[in-house]
Amino acid sequence: MNSFGDTFVFTSFGESHSAAIGGVLDGVPAGLHINFAMIREALDRRAGRTSSLPSVEGTELGTSARALHEPDEVEWLSGVLDGVTLGTPIAFLIRNRDARPEDYEALKHSFRQGHADSTYAAKYGIRDWRGGGRASARETAARVVAGNIAAQLLAKQGIQIHARLVQVGDETRPEHFSEVIARYRAEGDSIGGIVACEVSGLPAGLGEPIFDKVQAHLAYAILSINACKGFDYGSGFSGVGLPGSVANQQSGGLLGGITDGTTLRFRCVFKPTPSTPKAGVKGRHDACVAVRAVPVVEAMTALVLANFVASL
Amino acid sequence: MNSFGDTFVFTSFGESHSAAIGGVLDGVPAGLHINFAMIREALDRRAGRTSSLPSVEGTELGTSARALHEPDEVEWLSGVLDGVTLGTPIAFLIRNRDARPEDYEALKHSFRQGHADSTYAAKYGIRDWRGGGRASARETAARVVAGNIAAQLLAKQGIQIHARLVQVGDETRPEHFSEVIARYRAEGDSIGGIVACEVSGLPAGLGEPIFDKVQAHLAYAILSINACKGFDYGSGFSGVGLPGSVANQQSGGLLGGITDGTTLRFRCVFKPTPSTPKAGVKGRHDACVAVRAVPVVEAMTALVLANFVASL
Amino acid sequence: MNSFGDTFVFTSFGESHSAAIGGVLDGVPAGLHINFAMIREALDRRAGRTSSLPSVEGTELGTSARALHEPDEVEWLSGVLDGVTLGTPIAFLIRNRDARPEDYEALKHSFRQGHADSTYAAKYGIRDWRGGGRASARETAARVVAGNIAAQLLAKQGIQIHARLVQVGDETRPEHFSEVIARYRAEGDSIGGIVACEVSGLPAGLGEPIFDKVQAHLAYAILSINACKGFDYGSGFSGVGLPGSVANQQSGGLLGGITDGTTLRFRCVFKPTPSTPKAGVKGRHDACVAVRAVPVVEAMTALVLANFVASL
Amino acid sequence: MNSFGDTFVFTSFGESHSAAIGGVLDGVPAGLHINFAMIREALDRRAGRTSSLPSVEGTELGTSARALHEPDEVEWLSGVLDGVTLGTPIAFLIRNRDARPEDYEALKHSFRQGHADSTYAAKYGIRDWRGGGRASARETAARVVAGNIAAQLLAKQGIQIHARLVQVGDETRPEHFSEVIARYRAEGDSIGGIVACEVSGLPAGLGEPIFDKVQAHLAYAILSINACKGFDYGSGFSGVGLPGSVANQQSGGLLGGITDGTTLRFRCVFKPTPSTPKAGVKGRHDACVAVRAVPVVEAMTALVLANFVASL
Repeated sequence: MNSFGDTFVFTSFGESHSAAIGGVLDGVPAGLHINFAMIREALDRRAGRTSSLPSVEGTELGTSARALHEPDEVEWLSGVLDGVTLGTPIAFLIRNRDARPEDYEALKHSFRQGHADSTYAAKYGIRDWRGGGRASARETAARVVAGNIAAQLLAKQGIQIHARLVQVGDETRPEHFSEVIARYRAEGDSIGGIVACEVSGLPAGLGEPIFDKVQAHLAYAILSINACKGFDYGSGFSGVGLPGSVANQQSGGLLGGITDGTTLRFRCVFKPTPSTPKAGVKGRHDACVAVRAVPVVEAMTALVLANFVASL
Repeated sequence: MNSFGDTFVFTSFGESHSAAIGGVLDGVPAGLHINFAMIREALDRRAGRTSSLPSVEGTELGTSARALHEPDEVEWLSGVLDGVTLGTPIAFLIRNRDARPEDYEALKHSFRQGHADSTYAAKYGIRDWRGGGRASARETAARVVAGNIAAQLLAKQGIQIHARLVQVGDETRPEHFSEVIARYRAEGDSIGGIVACEVSGLPAGLGEPIFDKVQAHLAYAILSINACKGFDYGSGFSGVGLPGSVANQQSGGLLGGITDGTTLRFRCVFKPTPSTPKAGVKGRHDACVAVRAVPVVEAMTALVLANFVASL
Repeated sequence: MNSFGDTFVFTSFGESHSAAIGGVLDGVPAGLHINFAMIREALDRRAGRTSSLPSVEGTELGTSARALHEPDEVEWLSGVLDGVTLGTPIAFLIRNRDARPEDYEALKHSFRQGHADSTYAAKYGIRDWRGGGRASARETAARVVAGNIAAQLLAKQGIQIHARLVQVGDETRPEHFSEVIARYRAEGDSIGGIVACEVSGLPAGLGEPIFDKVQAHLAYAILSINACKGFDYGSGFSGVGLPGSVANQQSGGLLGGITDGTTLRFRCVFKPTPSTPKAGVKGRHDACVAVRAVPVVEAMTALVLANFVASL
Repeated sequence: MNSFGDTFVFTSFGESHSAAIGGVLDGVPAGLHINFAMIREALDRRAGRTSSLPSVEGTELGTSARALHEPDEVEWLSGVLDGVTLGTPIAFLIRNRDARPEDYEALKHSFRQGHADSTYAAKYGIRDWRGGGRASARETAARVVAGNIAAQLLAKQGIQIHARLVQVGDETRPEHFSEVIARYRAEGDSIGGIVACEVSGLPAGLGEPIFDKVQAHLAYAILSINACKGFDYGSGFSGVGLPGSVANQQSGGLLGGITDGTTLRFRCVFKPTPSTPKAGVKGRHDACVAVRAVPVVEAMTALVLANFVASL
């Protein structure tokens, strides 16, 4: 199904080339003053219009031509009056104005290599061949809108979420990321990356001991992002070689599935996109999707934590 | 809450020193002949009574004295008649016969270092100090019973789940695992490990594109296991350095969140236990909890997949 | 929350005077050819534009001026391509074009007698005073759209839902309903009514024995309609005086919570609206809301049954 | 499925002749001192061992021989320590000690008239012919245990639930109920009844405007009780003849689906049992199941309200 959460529920809709994408966010309490500029800023990062990475001359990092020409205007349908939430479901949409099905006509009878098109067709019988349909990364724009509202709600309680790119390929020095990405772009290839996320200001006691561990819900949310291939926290995968006497210093902000009041820290890895010139896909391409994944990671983290806070 | 799944639901109950632990498994179709010996075998592996690791003289790998003396007898309460499921909820319990609260008396007024005791007390106000309460790894015995029934149901459809230890500390050669673990045990310390899991025979088309991606549900299930610190699949964390032209050969059995009909593969990492002699905790200890986690990983994987199969 | 169903999920949004009302319908299989004329017909009945009741000269039965001027144009946002469902969430909206907040300005600082305004304000702290907000009967238009799609899906499987007014006040002769309603309207008063619903073509075996009895889900759905005060089926309330030897001939289509393959029959009662000229509320009024409730009863019934059919 | 509730979840298990029936109650906060005598008293009323009806010489009202010989001993498995809840799932069972499958041998190859046996066999393929299996009214004992714990939790907040029989057949004078029931019993027949329930001490603001209306959840819960054929509240079915100016005085404690702080009142109707000597079923029979339904109505009401209170 297309809903996320139990007490703070985000329902997502829209194909990449339907009239619109959008969502309904249910469970937002009344009285939140929405900061629309913050939502815009997160959408721009997702679309690759802005980036915290140092720019390299002649390149737009992690950006597609389409994203740059389609400014993601959010239309608010319900749940907000004069910028303040009403406690009712917040529905919003982003029109797919620049939908050009003709670009995709060539794909109509062929499946794109490495894409989910073939599994979808097997599953649904019918296939909306126009631009990947539901699988498109464009769907994450709706997540960013909803997640940003969640983040604003959390911020009122002193909870701050911050994700950043910490590795591109084998490179771990941020000041070299732009260069590495530019090199893969020039070669018509792509490269993976690791995003780290920190959450400060969390109260102790969020989460539950068995199935509602905070890390379990975070892993679920993060692995639901396109191209994400892994999640770890605390000592993680890289701590496997440490003896117990050392490894257990790193709680990652969680003990037994429950926040311990310290900073929550996790990582996630994004594979390189398969749609590259090298693989025969024409046009601009995302040389490192991890760059644009950063605001999506923040959005999904906010949705998870808003659920835990709402059920306090 | 203490339930897992939507259409194939496992509800877990029991503290480590309550009268019993157990569970209710709802959604099992009528007519499944239960293989009780398979459940026993999985419980024995979880308890450390048997292990696929070559034994090292004078050591019981990943085993506690308590586990060895408490044979995990399953008492079936409902849902099964003459060994065949009725389509009604299957309730079962395992008595905590060997509960010796006096052993834990010393802990009554102190919190165990690195354990979840302190976060639980903060959350619940009251604390069942007897043996870790709900946080105890003993709770996973109920998961193994329920997960094994799920696995038997999947096996009838040709789906086979197999997990195994693939790394202990920095050691990746299975024939050396026993030795490495014995060394940490002798030092009163502990070490982490990585478990890999493979699922063969899956039909294409399980899972859904947005939030019900198979990898998202697996990550949720696996990260709900005690001491698990990470999950990855396909190219995973170790593939971050590979260019798109290479990394995308490794689907891990999933495309766009949906099974593609090939073998599903994922990994997960377990941190070393903090309850070691070196940390001042007396008695036998688990030098590598990843050993006993193997059947729990299989159980949780089976529960996840049974949900997807049930909603087909 | 604002979602209905588990496997066939309808999420509703919109206040009576927000930009739009609408919904997202998740779980509709791919390949359904939507009959838009049927949806329009149901919306018209809900709005009071058409009615199966014989008209009485000079009266529009169960109709408000606003409903007549606001034609409920459905805008389809996603999930449908060339009139055929894609298997993805179907999002739609109906603009509140005729929103005239000035009409409601007078209500801004007063609570309407007998309305939910006061309980809402107590609950949400903030109140969208414009026309009753979420409590407005206008929200049922979105239910009718979603329920009609569900009904079309059921019809493909031979399942037909038909509701009709069977009692107005104490009058049980349909040919007199218009007259009775006209009399109450003329007096500036209102009157209750009973709606009966029949479902033919249901396969035996829908429903589950304990909490997922078909009648329980129907009662939940029907009691969620504004002004509904009761639900019964089979021998119902009126059969209380019959001995067991007689009463049990009337199964109502259900045995032990599960469909038995015969026609399903239930009734529900709607109280008269409190917003009448007699109670000091100016303007046109609904002299018998049960008339317009008929398509809403059909819609909710379809949503319930589509859930049961989807989980077969 | 066999679970009830979202935040305060009761999972029921057990067939009438399995080893035990029982349940798991999840979401009970830590620190509640359980009054076991209150649970016993409610179980006795459900079993027909005690009744608030004046006794008629030579009759046990609403009682079966089996119920009188099987004292419903509750065995507590988890979640309670020294009579105080731990905040973990409360699991309990009631053994089916007096299970005598031989009594049911005769039924093995025949379906009981008017019972759910035939619909279950159609649904599940296999049938536990021993005493009706899951459909048995015996399952309601587990509801009474769980519901009574919920009621005790509510009582701590000043919320009191009281149900009583208000009609037997056409008789509405309580002092004549025993007589009417005795007459039907003597004739080997059975008769229906109406139960009314009142809840005092509810805070204003429980419930939500659209699908989570309090009356909708109550109707769902009450219609899930065996033999229940209808639910109404406020002006209900009998108020259909009242004009709006009169009917709307009776809120039933709810406005727009939300509690208004006044006493909540609803009614429900129970059909006569089909298992009577007159219908060829030998042995003692329940001449009026509504008598024993009273504590079940209270239990389900408590479970519903505990969910609303838990999500406050």
